Amino acid sequence: MPEITINLAVGRTDEQKTAVMRDISDAMVKHLGVKAEDVVIQINEAPLANKMKGGKTFVERKAEQAK
Amino acid sequence: MPEITINLAVGRTDEQKTAVMRDISDAMVKHLGVKAEDVVIQINEAPLANKMKGGKTFVERKAEQAK
Amino acid sequence: MPEITINLAVGRTDEQKTAVMRDISDAMVKHLGVKAEDVVIQINEAPLANKMKGGKTFVERKAEQAK
Amino acid sequence: MPEITINLAVGRTDEQKTAVMRDISDAMVKHLGVKAEDVVIQINEAPLANKMKGGKTFVERKAEQAK
Amino acid sequence: MPEITINLAVGRTDEQKTAVMRDISDAMVKHLGVKAEDVVIQINEAPLANKMKGGKTFVERKAEQAK
Amino acid sequence: MPEITINLAVGRTDEQKTAVMRDISDAMVKHLGVKAEDVVIQINEAPLANKMKGGKTFVERKAEQAK
Repeated sequence: MPEITINLAVGRTDEQKTAVMRDISDAMVKHLGVKAEDVVIQINEAPLANKMKGGKTFVERKAEQAK
Repeated sequence: MPEITINLAVGRTDEQKTAVMRDISDAMVKHLGVKAEDVVIQINEAPLANKMKGGKTFVERKAEQAK
Repeated sequence: MPEITINLAVGRTDEQKTAVMRDISDAMVKHLGVKAEDVVIQINEAPLANKMKGGKTFVERKAEQAK
Repeated sequence: MPEITINLAVGRTDEQKTAVMRDISDAMVKHLGVKAEDVVIQINEAPLANKMKGGKTFVERKAEQAK
Repeated sequence: MPEITINLAVGRTDEQKTAVMRDISDAMVKHLGVKAEDVVIQINEAPLANKMKGGKTFVERKAEQAK
Repeated sequence: MPEITINLAVGRTDEQKTAVMRDISDAMVKHLGVKAEDVVIQINEAPLANKMKGGKTFVERKAEQAK
């Protein structure tokens, strides 16, 4: 406790994911007074076709950004 | 905001998933008065062996339906 | 199956929430070929102090909008 | 690890919720070889108006069962 | 209803996952008075690089245990 | 995107929750290259009776710590 679940589109490196999870863990320890060992974080990565924002899938959004 | 997470067994096409997410996005905009850009949807797909209903995995359920 | 979880800030009426859940249920039946009885939706509502976007809690965002 | 989240309509007693969480914890220890201390379970309870199955909110479903 | 989501690092066999889901399903039926058919369970498995506990990814934790 | 959901037992102040969410938001911006406005965080707080760790509810754990 606490348990953190992150919904994320695929595409980040392991280094990026490790860094963000480490900062989240540190924030929990610093502000909530829990032990690091009690903080559990999981990133649930979705393929671009399984995620939508603004009415467009991330496949569509990526294609638009590439234009 | 709002954020929608969908737990789904694998097996749908990208077209099916896009269509269902688009309708969900539209429903949020229509009924909750939010902007489309604020609606985020993610489908977390599980292999058939990672999902159970009625005390049977979806591997077992699919095998029964095929009989 | 499928199971839908919606993260939402408090403040919507029951009528709004029912309408959006009904449209989501319909979209699942229409596009994924599942029975309505198999579609389960839950809205997890958070107090404004328990939600953040753009680095500001929804308490702060609401206060800014009221200006 | 593992972390279990349960989506549930309100209405169960603390005794019922404790019993079901204890059995889940035991199952994790028994079958996955983890320590009990590593199993974390949270029940996210929703008011009946925040949950839908079969195209009907649990307010509607309860009213029908009462007939 | 109820819907159970399990966050788990990869590495368990299908037999282990089936056994733990079956026990969870049984516990729901026994203690909450629901029908087995109404209990839905999904395991969201994360690669070891997508999960952290105690400030270390499960890649790091596994490497330490192997020493 | 990304969307972060935090499962937490009740008992923290709004100040604590704001501080931890702000650090998480900052970490996402810093390490993943997203805009702050795209980071959404929700804390789902559970009553102590709705949460278990180590085979004991947080009601039981709190009672033990008070001894």
